[in-house]
Amino acid sequence: MLSIHSDEHFMREAYKQAQYALEEGEIPIGAVVVCQNKIIARAYNQTEKLNDVTAHAEMLAFTAAANHLGNKYLHDCTLYVTVEPCVMCAGASYWSQLKRVVYATGDEKRGYRRTGVNLLHPKTELVTGILASECAQLMTDFFRAKRI
Amino acid sequence: MLSIHSDEHFMREAYKQAQYALEEGEIPIGAVVVCQNKIIARAYNQTEKLNDVTAHAEMLAFTAAANHLGNKYLHDCTLYVTVEPCVMCAGASYWSQLKRVVYATGDEKRGYRRTGVNLLHPKTELVTGILASECAQLMTDFFRAKRI
Repeated sequence: MLSIHSDEHFMREAYKQAQYALEEGEIPIGAVVVCQNKIIARAYNQTEKLNDVTAHAEMLAFTAAANHLGNKYLHDCTLYVTVEPCVMCAGASYWSQLKRVVYATGDEKRGYRRTGVNLLHPKTELVTGILASECAQLMTDFFRAKRI
Repeated sequence: MLSIHSDEHFMREAYKQAQYALEEGEIPIGAVVVCQNKIIARAYNQTEKLNDVTAHAEMLAFTAAANHLGNKYLHDCTLYVTVEPCVMCAGASYWSQLKRVVYATGDEKRGYRRTGVNLLHPKTELVTGILASECAQLMTDFFRAKRI
C-alpha cells in the first residue's frame, strides 16, 4: 500500500541530515528533495569538509536530484530544508524551477527573504514553519558551542 | 620579469572559456579567477553537459579556485566573468568574499542587479564593461542561432 507522507515526515528526514552536519562540525543544515512522495536526494551542509562555500545542503541536494532524474529541472519536486535558504540557494532554486520549497526556520541574517525580493521561481510554492523549533534548536546549539 | 596584466587581459581569458561553451552548445559564459596576477581557475558554463542548473561558469570557478588555494574564502581574488552573474552566482560570490568582481556585459533578464539589491559581499569591488561588446556578441550569436 502506498502511504502518502506529510511535510513533517519529510522535514524529519531533512532534520536527520542536519544532525549529520552537526556531528561533523558543520553548520547544521540538512535537506531532502522529494518527487512523487519519494525522497530522491539527501544532503547536508559540507562547506568545511569540502572546503567550498557552494557546498550548501540545498545545492548538493539539487545536483543529486537532477542526477537521479536525468533532468536538471525539478518541476515536480519539493525541497525540504531545515533553515531558510540563502541568496545562492534561492537563486539555484529559481533555476531548478522547483514545485515547492518547504523550510523549517527562518534565518534573519543570511536568509534570502532579508533582500525583500522573492528570489524563488514565481511558480514555486513556499511553505514555512514545519518543525521550526527543532531545526532552530540545532542551529542555536551549534553557535552556542562555537562561542564557548 | 613579472608582467602585471590588465583587466582586459584576464577578461580575454574568460572570453576564451565562453567560446568553449559556445562550441559545446552551452550558453556562452566563461570565467576565470585571478589571485596575485595569476589565473588559478578557469571554467565555462556546463549546465547542459552536467545536467545541473548549478554548473554555471562562476560556480565551477569558485570551487576550482578554493581547491587550488586550500581555502574556501577568496579574499585576494578577482572573478572575471563575461556576463553579469545571476542571483545564485552573486550569492556564491558573497560567501566567497571575493575582493573584486569584473564582468563584461550586463544581463537585464537574469543578472543579479535586476533585484535592485547589492547581493555581492559589501567588501567586494565591482567593475563592469571590460570587453563588453565582444562578450555580448557571443550571447547574441548563441540565442540567434537557437531561434533559427
